[in-house]
Amino acid sequence: MEEKYETLKIQQESPNSGVFNLIINRPSVSNALGLNFFSEFPKILNALDQNPTVAIIVLSGSGNHFCGGIDLKSLAAIADDNSGDQGRTRERLRRKIKFMQDAITAIERCRKPVIAAIHGACLGLGINIVTACDIRYCTKDAIFSVKEVDLAITADLGTLQRLPGIVGFGKAMELSLTGRRFSGDEAKELGLVSRVFGSREELKEGVRTIAEGIGGKPPLAVVGTKAVLIRSRDVNVEQGLDYVATWNSSMLLSEDLTEAISAQKQKRKPTFAKL
Amino acid sequence: MEEKYETLKIQQESPNSGVFNLIINRPSVSNALGLNFFSEFPKILNALDQNPTVAIIVLSGSGNHFCGGIDLKSLAAIADDNSGDQGRTRERLRRKIKFMQDAITAIERCRKPVIAAIHGACLGLGINIVTACDIRYCTKDAIFSVKEVDLAITADLGTLQRLPGIVGFGKAMELSLTGRRFSGDEAKELGLVSRVFGSREELKEGVRTIAEGIGGKPPLAVVGTKAVLIRSRDVNVEQGLDYVATWNSSMLLSEDLTEAISAQKQKRKPTFAKL
Amino acid sequence: MEEKYETLKIQQESPNSGVFNLIINRPSVSNALGLNFFSEFPKILNALDQNPTVAIIVLSGSGNHFCGGIDLKSLAAIADDNSGDQGRTRERLRRKIKFMQDAITAIERCRKPVIAAIHGACLGLGINIVTACDIRYCTKDAIFSVKEVDLAITADLGTLQRLPGIVGFGKAMELSLTGRRFSGDEAKELGLVSRVFGSREELKEGVRTIAEGIGGKPPLAVVGTKAVLIRSRDVNVEQGLDYVATWNSSMLLSEDLTEAISAQKQKRKPTFAKL
Amino acid sequence: MEEKYETLKIQQESPNSGVFNLIINRPSVSNALGLNFFSEFPKILNALDQNPTVAIIVLSGSGNHFCGGIDLKSLAAIADDNSGDQGRTRERLRRKIKFMQDAITAIERCRKPVIAAIHGACLGLGINIVTACDIRYCTKDAIFSVKEVDLAITADLGTLQRLPGIVGFGKAMELSLTGRRFSGDEAKELGLVSRVFGSREELKEGVRTIAEGIGGKPPLAVVGTKAVLIRSRDVNVEQGLDYVATWNSSMLLSEDLTEAISAQKQKRKPTFAKL
Amino acid sequence: MEEKYETLKIQQESPNSGVFNLIINRPSVSNALGLNFFSEFPKILNALDQNPTVAIIVLSGSGNHFCGGIDLKSLAAIADDNSGDQGRTRERLRRKIKFMQDAITAIERCRKPVIAAIHGACLGLGINIVTACDIRYCTKDAIFSVKEVDLAITADLGTLQRLPGIVGFGKAMELSLTGRRFSGDEAKELGLVSRVFGSREELKEGVRTIAEGIGGKPPLAVVGTKAVLIRSRDVNVEQGLDYVATWNSSMLLSEDLTEAISAQKQKRKPTFAKL
Amino acid sequence: MEEKYETLKIQQESPNSGVFNLIINRPSVSNALGLNFFSEFPKILNALDQNPTVAIIVLSGSGNHFCGGIDLKSLAAIADDNSGDQGRTRERLRRKIKFMQDAITAIERCRKPVIAAIHGACLGLGINIVTACDIRYCTKDAIFSVKEVDLAITADLGTLQRLPGIVGFGKAMELSLTGRRFSGDEAKELGLVSRVFGSREELKEGVRTIAEGIGGKPPLAVVGTKAVLIRSRDVNVEQGLDYVATWNSSMLLSEDLTEAISAQKQKRKPTFAKL
Repeated sequence: MEEKYETLKIQQESPNSGVFNLIINRPSVSNALGLNFFSEFPKILNALDQNPTVAIIVLSGSGNHFCGGIDLKSLAAIADDNSGDQGRTRERLRRKIKFMQDAITAIERCRKPVIAAIHGACLGLGINIVTACDIRYCTKDAIFSVKEVDLAITADLGTLQRLPGIVGFGKAMELSLTGRRFSGDEAKELGLVSRVFGSREELKEGVRTIAEGIGGKPPLAVVGTKAVLIRSRDVNVEQGLDYVATWNSSMLLSEDLTEAISAQKQKRKPTFAKL
Repeated sequence: MEEKYETLKIQQESPNSGVFNLIINRPSVSNALGLNFFSEFPKILNALDQNPTVAIIVLSGSGNHFCGGIDLKSLAAIADDNSGDQGRTRERLRRKIKFMQDAITAIERCRKPVIAAIHGACLGLGINIVTACDIRYCTKDAIFSVKEVDLAITADLGTLQRLPGIVGFGKAMELSLTGRRFSGDEAKELGLVSRVFGSREELKEGVRTIAEGIGGKPPLAVVGTKAVLIRSRDVNVEQGLDYVATWNSSMLLSEDLTEAISAQKQKRKPTFAKL
Repeated sequence: MEEKYETLKIQQESPNSGVFNLIINRPSVSNALGLNFFSEFPKILNALDQNPTVAIIVLSGSGNHFCGGIDLKSLAAIADDNSGDQGRTRERLRRKIKFMQDAITAIERCRKPVIAAIHGACLGLGINIVTACDIRYCTKDAIFSVKEVDLAITADLGTLQRLPGIVGFGKAMELSLTGRRFSGDEAKELGLVSRVFGSREELKEGVRTIAEGIGGKPPLAVVGTKAVLIRSRDVNVEQGLDYVATWNSSMLLSEDLTEAISAQKQKRKPTFAKL
Repeated sequence: MEEKYETLKIQQESPNSGVFNLIINRPSVSNALGLNFFSEFPKILNALDQNPTVAIIVLSGSGNHFCGGIDLKSLAAIADDNSGDQGRTRERLRRKIKFMQDAITAIERCRKPVIAAIHGACLGLGINIVTACDIRYCTKDAIFSVKEVDLAITADLGTLQRLPGIVGFGKAMELSLTGRRFSGDEAKELGLVSRVFGSREELKEGVRTIAEGIGGKPPLAVVGTKAVLIRSRDVNVEQGLDYVATWNSSMLLSEDLTEAISAQKQKRKPTFAKL
Repeated sequence: MEEKYETLKIQQESPNSGVFNLIINRPSVSNALGLNFFSEFPKILNALDQNPTVAIIVLSGSGNHFCGGIDLKSLAAIADDNSGDQGRTRERLRRKIKFMQDAITAIERCRKPVIAAIHGACLGLGINIVTACDIRYCTKDAIFSVKEVDLAITADLGTLQRLPGIVGFGKAMELSLTGRRFSGDEAKELGLVSRVFGSREELKEGVRTIAEGIGGKPPLAVVGTKAVLIRSRDVNVEQGLDYVATWNSSMLLSEDLTEAISAQKQKRKPTFAKL
Repeated sequence: MEEKYETLKIQQESPNSGVFNLIINRPSVSNALGLNFFSEFPKILNALDQNPTVAIIVLSGSGNHFCGGIDLKSLAAIADDNSGDQGRTRERLRRKIKFMQDAITAIERCRKPVIAAIHGACLGLGINIVTACDIRYCTKDAIFSVKEVDLAITADLGTLQRLPGIVGFGKAMELSLTGRRFSGDEAKELGLVSRVFGSREELKEGVRTIAEGIGGKPPLAVVGTKAVLIRSRDVNVEQGLDYVATWNSSMLLSEDLTEAISAQKQKRKPTFAKL
C-alpha cells in the first residue's frame, strides 16, 4: 500500500478502520484521467481486496471534481494511432478498449463494496466508473453528464451496459443520446445515486458513517450479497436462486452466523473476524 | 379450503367474491415464520390456483405486522444442523434452502395475481415474499428492511434476484448492503410499492377495491398478462415477443374477447366466466 | 417520401433540418389504428432510415390524441377470422400477430433515434408504440393506459416486453393488470417519459429543440449509442462490453472524432457529415 | 416403496445393492403409457431420490419393448377435450402438457443418476423419456423413432429440447422431421446411446455392472457431476465455471475426499457413506 | 413464381407435388454467387413459404457443383468500397454483411423445411448456406471446405454460429481454422450430412423420396417441429419446454390430429389439408 | 521467453517459425501438476500471445504422458486447509478454484490458436486442459479419463462446461459419471480429437505440419475465427451473427484481404504480416 501512484491515493479512514478511501488524484486537471489510470486502478483495487484490514472502499475525487472525463490527450493519441495496416490498427484498438474496460470492471471483481462519493463534475469516464460502483452518493451541486456522444464516441467503458440496470432503459437512452448535464438532485430522482448531501463536508461525513456501518457488518454476508447480486444480474431468476442456494450451502455456516444470532439474542453488538 | 393451517388463514372477501385473503397468522410473534410456513404456503397457493372461484389473492399479515422475518429458532436450528460429514451437511443445507425458495416461488407459479398488502414490519423474509408478489401496496408507517446481512446471511430466498428488477440494481445493492430501514413513503419512491395508504383501514379498503377491479376483468387476459410478464423477464425482447404471439394464437380467441368487444360496443359492463 | 399514406404523414421540421416529424394521422377516430398502419409504418421508418438527410425522427399524433389504441373493427376482424381448421386458424393468427409486432420493432431497427411526443390519449397500442421509441416526452394532461386487459387481450405488441425495462417490473405488472389510466405527471414519476410539458405547444417546441440538439451531434456516435444500448439490453454485462469494444474498434476512428476533438480544443461548434 | 403402481415397478438389484431397477410395466400394450404414468413416475423418482439406500436407478421396460409411445386412447381423450370456451380449453391443455413435461423432467430433478436400458421399441414418448435420462444403453435390435410428427404432434415432452444437445442439431432435425425408424447400432453412431449390447441379457448384465460401478463411487461427487452438467447446459462457460467453483467450495471438503485420497495412497478400494 | 431470376430457378417436382426444387443456377462459374443472389434468395423463399402448394423445398446446384463460394469480384468490390470517411465506410460495410446474413437466415424464417442436396463443391458461402438448411444430404464425392480463412475472412454469414451446433464445437473449430477440404463421407462422419449417396442421380432420387415423405406428413406438425427446434436452440430447456407447451396448446387441436389418429386406428394412409 | 519455468518449457519449432511448442515438463511424475503450474501457465500464454513472432501454439507433454492429472499432494493440501472458521475456509477455497480455472481459461483468452498434441495419459486435469484448447490430436495409444469422480471431486476446472459442447451432452455425462478410460481411437469416435496418429513421432510430425499450415494463414482471420467461435458459443445465433458482422466491419478491410485476393487471382502463395 506504500507504493506511490500517479492518478490515485489511498487513505485509511482512521487507524484500525476497515474503511479505506481511494481518491482520484489529478486535481490540477479536474481529475481528467489518462492511460496510467487504467493501469493503476485495477492493481490498487486488487491489493485492497486482498488486504484483510480493508472492509470497504470509498472512491472520491480530490480537488473540485470527482472526474472530469477522459484526458483529451489520451483520446487524441488513440485517434492518431492509425498507422500501418488498418485491420491491425483496429485489432489493436479493440484490445486497448478491452484493457480499459477491464480496469473499470475491477470494481466488480473486488469482493468488498466500493462506494462512490461524488462532488463537482462526474462526466463521461466518470459515469462509467460510478455505474460500476456498488453504491453512489453525491452532493447537491454535483454535475453529471454521459457526454461521450459529444466527443463522437459511443460510450464504451460500461455506461451503456450498467446505467440501464440502475436508472431504467428509457432514462439511460435519453441521458446517453442527449448528453445533457444533470444535477445531484436529479441524479437522486433518476435513481443514479442513493442519497444527496448538502455539501462536500456532509457528503464526506455521511458516507464515512455509512461505510463504517457496512464495514462493521458480518464480512462473509457483505461479500456474498455483492457477489450474488452481480451474478444474479446476468442469469434468470431460477438460475440466480439456485446460485445463492449453492453459495449459502457453502458459506452460511460460519462463526459470523453464530455470533450474529447470539448477539441478537443477548441484545449486544456483535463482532466479526476480518475476511 | 377447510383445512386448518398453523401459519396462515384464508378468508373469502365476501360470499361469491373472487377475492381471497391469505393472511399470515402468527401475530403473537410479529408474524415471524418458521419451517411450517414453507410447507403450508405453496400448498395453499396451489389450492387457491386450482379453485375456479378464486380470481385474485390478497396477502396480508394479522396483528401489527406483515412479517417480522424468519423465526430465529428456525434459523438457529439450521445453523446447528452441522453433525456428520461436512460435505453431506452442506448438500442437505442446499436442499433445505431450495425447498424454502420453492415455497416462495409458488407465488409466481400461481396463475392468478397475488397482491401484497403490507402494514407494520416487513423485514428479511418479508421482503423475499413481497418481491415475489405481483403488486405491492402498503401503509404510510410500514417499515421495510432487507435485514439478512445483519444476521450474517446472504439473502437467499429471492430478494437478491427479484428486488433489482423492481427498484433498479443500484437501489437494490444499497438496501441489501446497508440493511437500513425505510418507510412506506420511501418504498413508494423507490418503486417497491405501487401506492401508499394512510392507515391500515384505508389499505384494506383500497386493496379490496383494486382486487375486485382485477377480479372482474377477463380471467384469461389477467392470467396471460401475469404469465407473459414473468416469462418475458427471463428472455430477450425478441424471444418474449415470439412467446406472447404464440400464447395469444392459443388463447386470444375466447368468449372473453367476444364479450369484451360487444360490451364495449354496447357500452355495458361485460361479464366473464370463471377460470 | 412523396408517397401518400393513409395512417401517417411525414413533415421535415424545416428545409435542411435533420429533424423529421412522423405524424399518426387518423384524427377523426382519435388515431385509432387498423391493419394498414402496420403495413405503412415500417415502410416509412425504413425509408427515413435510408435517407441521409434524416438525422432523427419525432413521432406524434395529429388531432387531439397520440393514439387511441387499436381500431375496434380490426380487432373484431381478427376475432372473427375463425373459419376452417382451428389449428390452421391459430397458425395464421400467430403470423398476423408477429407481422404487427414486427411493424413496431421497426422503431428499434431504424438506426436513427425515434422520439415520441405524446399528447392526449396514449392507450393500448399507443403504449406498445411509445415503449419501442428511444425517448418519450408528453404533455401534463396526456392520458396513458395499458388497457388491453379490459379488451380481454394479453398485450402482445411489445408492452409486456419493453415496459418493465423502462419503469421496473413491479410497476409494469401493476399497470398491466389494472389497466388504470395515469396522467403525464405520473408517467414522469413512473419513469415512462423523460419530461412533461405544460401544453401541446410547449411539447412541440421543447421536443423540436431536443431533437435538433441530437440531430446536430456526430451521427456515428448517435447511431452507435442507440444500437449498443439496444444490443446490451439482451446480453450480459461482459458480453455487452465486448460488443461495444468491437463496435468502436470499427467505428470510433472517423472524421467525426477528429472534428469533435479539434472543435473542443478550438472551442468552436463542430460540424459533421450526414450518415 | 411397497406401494403398488399401475405402470411401473421397482426392484432392488440385490439386497444391500444401491442399484434400483425402475421398470415400465405395461407389457400387454407394448408399454404404451397413459396419464397414470405421468402421476406415478415423478412420485417414484422422488421417493428413490430421498431413499439413502438408492445410489443409482436403471430404467427399463418389461416384456418386449422399452416403451411403445403414448397410449392412443389418452391422446384421443386430449384431442376430444374440446368442450366449452375455446380459450379455456387451450389454457387447460397447456397445463396438461406442462404436467406431463414435469413428470419427465423429474428424471433431471432426481439427484441420483438414471440410466436407460433400452430394448425393443422406444418410440415417441419413449424418446422423450430416454433423452431426459443421464446415460442410455440399448440392444442391437432396439428400434427408435421420433414418431410424433406422424401423429400430427409437434413433440412436446422434451425431445425437441434435449435431443439436439445429445446428437447435434442437424441430426435432431432430420430424425424429428422424418420420424424414421433407426436401430440400436445407428443410435450408437448418432451418439444417442453410449454402448450397444448384443442381446437383452447382455444389456441387463452390462448395465448392471456399469450401474454398480457408479453406485460404488463417492456419492457427493456423483450427485455433483450430474447437477453441474445439467446446470452448465443452460448457462455460458464463465457462469458454469463460477457455479462449479461455488458448488465445490461447499461440497468438496468431505469425508469422501479424505477417503478417496487415502485409499489411492494405500492402493485399496475406498468405501463411502450413503447420501 | 413465374418471375425470372439470375441466380436461382424453381422447379416443382411434378404437377401437384408439394416438393419444390430451388436450384442455384450459375453453372458457368461453378455456382459462385454475388450480390444479386442475396437479393433474390430471401424473396423466393418467402414466396415459397406463402404458397400453400409448397410443402417442402429442396435446395441444390445446377452444373457440377452445389456452390463454389462467394464470387471473387463481389468480394473485391466490398474490399474496394473504402472511400470517404473510414467510420462511415465501416458502418456501411456492417450493414452490407447484415443484409447478406439476413438473406441466408431466410432459410430459417421459411416455415417449411429446406433440404440441401449437395454434390460437387460446397465451399465457403456454400457452407454458410447448407448449415442454415434443416437437413443435408450429399454425394460421396462432394467436396466441402470452410475456406474463408484462406481468403483472409472471418466467416461471417452463419458458419461460425451454426456449424458448432451441428458437428460439435471442437470439429467446427478445426474445420474453420484449417479450412481443409473434406469429402462427403467425412461430412457424414462429422455429422454435417445425414446420408451420403453414391452418385448425383441417387442423391436426386433419394432426396426426392425423403422430401415427398415429409411433404406428405401433417403440415402443422412439420412446421411446428422446425419452429420449435429452432426456438429451443436459443433458450434453455425449461424455457423450450414452456414454449412448446404454449405452441401445442394453440396448434395441437386440429383436423390433422383427428385425421392422424383415425387413420392410425383404421390402418389407412392419412391425408392432410395444405398449409 | 528466456525465463525458466518449473512446470513448462517453450520451444520455437525452428528459427523464424511461427509455431511455438509449449511443453508440460514434469516427466518424472508423469506430468502430474501442482499449484505452480497454475501460476506459470497463464503467464506464459499471455507472453506468447503478445509476441508477434508467435502465430500458433502446440501444447504437449514431455516424457511418457501428456498429463497424469492433478498432483495428489496439492489436492491433499487443499483438503487439509480446513482450519479457522469454516465459512472463511470455504470462501478461500472458492477463490483457489477460481484461480485455477482462470489459468486454464487463459487458453481461450490467448488470441492465437492452441493445439493439444496428446500422447500417453491424459487424465483428470489433463481433460480440463485439452477441452479448453482449440484443436486436439492424439496418438492411437493415448489414454483418456475424466477421472475426478473417483477422487471424490466434481470436476471443477472446465471439463463439465466444455466437454458437452465438444462430444455432446450424453457422452459427456457418461464419461464423467463412469470415469472410464478410453483410447485415442475412441476419442476420435467421440469427437474429442480431430485425428489419431499411429505413433508419437507421427503425431509430432503431423501436428507440426498442420500448425505450420495455420501459422501461414492470414493472422487477422485466424484470430477472428477463434474469437468469434468462442463468443458465439455463449450467445444465440442472431446475436452471434450481429457480433461477427460488427467484428468484420472492423477487421475485414486489411492488407491481408487485399493480399489474399490478389494471390488467388495470380495463383501464387500469399504472404501476410505478423500480428
